[in-house]
Amino acid sequence: MTKPPEMPADLRAAFDAYERAIVANDLDALDAFFAPGTETLRGDTSGLLVGHDAISGFRSLRGGVPPREIAEIHYRPLASAGGPGGPSADGDIALLVSVSHFLGGGRGLQTQVWQRIDGAWLITAAHVTLRTPALDRTIWRSVGDPFLQGRWEGPLAGLTVAVKDLFAIAGFRIGAGNPTFLEEARPEKSTAPAVADLLRGGASLRGIARTDEFAYSIAGDNVHYGTPPNGAVVGALPGGSSSGPASAVAGGHADIGLATDTAGSIRVPASYQGLWGLRTTHGLVPRQGMLPLAQSFDTIGWLTRDGETLQRVADWCLSYDGSASTENVYGASGADLPWRFLVPEEILACAEPATRDAFSRLLAALAASEDPPPFRAVHSGDLDTTFAAFRTVQGAEAWRNDGEWMRAHPGAVGPAVAERFRIASGITPVDEAAARAELEPIAAHLAELVDGAVLIFPTVPGPAPQRTADVDAVRAATLRMTAPAAVAGLPSISVPLLTLPAPAGPAPVGVCLVSRAGTDIALVRLARRLAALVASTRSRPTETS
Amino acid sequence: MTKPPEMPADLRAAFDAYERAIVANDLDALDAFFAPGTETLRGDTSGLLVGHDAISGFRSLRGGVPPREIAEIHYRPLASAGGPGGPSADGDIALLVSVSHFLGGGRGLQTQVWQRIDGAWLITAAHVTLRTPALDRTIWRSVGDPFLQGRWEGPLAGLTVAVKDLFAIAGFRIGAGNPTFLEEARPEKSTAPAVADLLRGGASLRGIARTDEFAYSIAGDNVHYGTPPNGAVVGALPGGSSSGPASAVAGGHADIGLATDTAGSIRVPASYQGLWGLRTTHGLVPRQGMLPLAQSFDTIGWLTRDGETLQRVADWCLSYDGSASTENVYGASGADLPWRFLVPEEILACAEPATRDAFSRLLAALAASEDPPPFRAVHSGDLDTTFAAFRTVQGAEAWRNDGEWMRAHPGAVGPAVAERFRIASGITPVDEAAARAELEPIAAHLAELVDGAVLIFPTVPGPAPQRTADVDAVRAATLRMTAPAAVAGLPSISVPLLTLPAPAGPAPVGVCLVSRAGTDIALVRLARRLAALVASTRSRPTETS
Repeated sequence: MTKPPEMPADLRAAFDAYERAIVANDLDALDAFFAPGTETLRGDTSGLLVGHDAISGFRSLRGGVPPREIAEIHYRPLASAGGPGGPSADGDIALLVSVSHFLGGGRGLQTQVWQRIDGAWLITAAHVTLRTPALDRTIWRSVGDPFLQGRWEGPLAGLTVAVKDLFAIAGFRIGAGNPTFLEEARPEKSTAPAVADLLRGGASLRGIARTDEFAYSIAGDNVHYGTPPNGAVVGALPGGSSSGPASAVAGGHADIGLATDTAGSIRVPASYQGLWGLRTTHGLVPRQGMLPLAQSFDTIGWLTRDGETLQRVADWCLSYDGSASTENVYGASGADLPWRFLVPEEILACAEPATRDAFSRLLAALAASEDPPPFRAVHSGDLDTTFAAFRTVQGAEAWRNDGEWMRAHPGAVGPAVAERFRIASGITPVDEAAARAELEPIAAHLAELVDGAVLIFPTVPGPAPQRTADVDAVRAATLRMTAPAAVAGLPSISVPLLTLPAPAGPAPVGVCLVSRAGTDIALVRLARRLAALVASTRSRPTETS
Repeated sequence: MTKPPEMPADLRAAFDAYERAIVANDLDALDAFFAPGTETLRGDTSGLLVGHDAISGFRSLRGGVPPREIAEIHYRPLASAGGPGGPSADGDIALLVSVSHFLGGGRGLQTQVWQRIDGAWLITAAHVTLRTPALDRTIWRSVGDPFLQGRWEGPLAGLTVAVKDLFAIAGFRIGAGNPTFLEEARPEKSTAPAVADLLRGGASLRGIARTDEFAYSIAGDNVHYGTPPNGAVVGALPGGSSSGPASAVAGGHADIGLATDTAGSIRVPASYQGLWGLRTTHGLVPRQGMLPLAQSFDTIGWLTRDGETLQRVADWCLSYDGSASTENVYGASGADLPWRFLVPEEILACAEPATRDAFSRLLAALAASEDPPPFRAVHSGDLDTTFAAFRTVQGAEAWRNDGEWMRAHPGAVGPAVAERFRIASGITPVDEAAARAELEPIAAHLAELVDGAVLIFPTVPGPAPQRTADVDAVRAATLRMTAPAAVAGLPSISVPLLTLPAPAGPAPVGVCLVSRAGTDIALVRLARRLAALVASTRSRPTETS
């Protein structure tokens, strides 16, 4: 056994200085230790970042590392420019693998490739494993294996559910994404039918997942618990307000996200994280035991990684056998929807150019497929008007639901959501009545459009914005795209059919289908048919030029 | 920007073959892909393994990797033996960083250093991050942030607790480490005083942690939920039966493990994982709401990472102010214990030679310290007799507690625990009475020994065995060391004061102190004084030879 080579003193000094910078969270120093250029790599549990700038941008969001000590360092020289035993020279490459012990318990592992560049040791690749937390508190409030066992048999047996923290579970409190609200809440006496339906179908609960505060946001951040990771795009917003269920499903923690959608809270995270998401017909899934945001638009729905699972859930929960509500005004929704699509021009115009291009290419591919459906452009109506009226009614209802609590707890809610409630508090009954009157013909027009065809358009303007981005403009455009289905109470599904280039690599964008009220089960079936057709167009041999 | 170099075809082939072997869990192929020798590295969240044999041994325990696809590969040539652009040659070194997408959701990251050795590409270092699970089901049944909020103020404010799954928490069921038992259990109506005391002191619950089935084991494994990771020694048993709380505390998931000790179930995992663990005086902490194993010996206690936290817990939970039991037969335990130690020869003889040597060196260092206590060898009595009688009474009580359930659920319990219950089922009342009669003088002798001094000895025979080891002999020796304090109902603390070499690196072994009944608070204080003294002997400048 040969004695392992000794680490060069200047490399050890660089390693120690880097470690000090990590513990101090000295961002400038950390940036300087990573080699410049587009080839530098840094990865951890949240994903791989490629290039110095991407690494630097993400670091600003990460926050510091808890206090730790280096317990072991393993040095492996990989290349020596100065020859064996010679002095350290440019081009030297070394691998350092180190184990850290956190003072608060737990261990971490760092693998680093260091390279001597212009006289200085720099990191060209790093792989970091911090200690594993008991749970990811940005995704989960509480989690278990099982958290709550469902029936051992049933059509959903074996599936696990992430329940958005707006639903009653007997014995547990509702937190609504706010620690003050949670602390004051009383344990629920009974379980919401939407939860009970899943348990009765054989699914088990994995846990209670985070929501944007009071579900009054589509960003997916939460000032109290942090921003859940986007399961598809490193460093991007997860989308909200069903952020916790979406990240749980994308990350493989659960198979089904039980979520709510008032203005887009299922469809937006579905699009951002490459998931299937169904906003059901308004009123179809009973809302008892669900903390309301705005009753005129609140719906319950699900997030899954694939269409087959979503179909299983919809088939059970929307059938007379499966649902705790034994009937609904729409009757059974077994019949197939028409294979005819309408593209609403005003909604499409809200999408970013790259998204519109990708969507056009998708339609072209479908038109050239073996099962080409007809597409026709239609007018959805003016979206500024639609959204303004929607926002007024939503705000008035939100304030009736939560205003008293907001007044009693100044400062308890994060600034963006607080500002939304502040504006809502100023909406008068006259404003609200006028807005409702405005929405009526809009809803009627949309209902007319989907009588005999299905609307199709990109779910949101584009890929999930990076967490460092200014999202106000994106938010405005997004809500214009998602509000119409909410206004008309129509079922709406987001299917991950588009892939767009984004700074951190290819990113998903959903395609949204909107159909007639009560046709939810058929809508999922239609979406699966469409997805299968898209897959078939992509798996065809590439044409030679 | 230069075009990145292309990966050599034979390296790509090796990478692909390795990935296939991972997904197929082909252990021989995986072993062959790792470079032989003692320098090869492989690390993941559970720690770093050094050397081909250590890597190979651990791999056999890991089980397969869930289905996944490689989504990205980044190739970085690090050294080229054949010169730039030349053919692939021995000595070539390349870094491959790859991102995998799991079919069931989630992403993984692999960093590998490949080296061409004797014509074949082999891995000389690897760092693997699989997708992060929602929770580590080997450690936790259910976990939250918070799982259950305690009082916002109090001496334990800010501390989090891992509760062994034997304690009643209102609204939750007791699982006892067995899924069948959990499924049939009813939610508890009230919270065990031992849990309520912590909540009233300001601590919050982090969650419900795993236990060996019915607490009838000291290994720390569980056939249903897997073996929790040892927080101090990669690949080693965590120790049980309080395995979940111990691993949770060692890993930094919680600050306090609320646990039970019948025959060593707190002291063994404390020793194995470098924790502080207190088995309290029998009867001192009220056992209401705790699922019993053997009432004559069952006690409640705590695991922590440091003595200061354990002191805070003991001061609160064992004081008249803090505990739900407002008095006990022992009165207050404020007075200091004597600074006089007795070394029980028969117990020490059960330790492995290396442990005895390390323990001797510790005593010598203490004798040479600034505050040297007197040490004296004593006889604890014959341990075969003690343990045989202990086991008989324990078994008889365990069968009275759980026998009916065991008979009703054949096959529901893992083989090792089932065998223990099978033997217990054969113990007759005559056997039990005889064993109790045998234990009386033994307990009286031990009580006499600690009247005016404190017993000191290694907690267990040696470092935590590797999970691949045959542990029957270790188990027999361990229980001979831990049973005496249980027989006499004496408080007993394990303090991580010894470090021994072990196959996977330095490993902790605890030093156990046993004192007079009811002196628990003073025992923690004494242990801290001893630990501080040991630290002072180690921080002194090394003598020159």
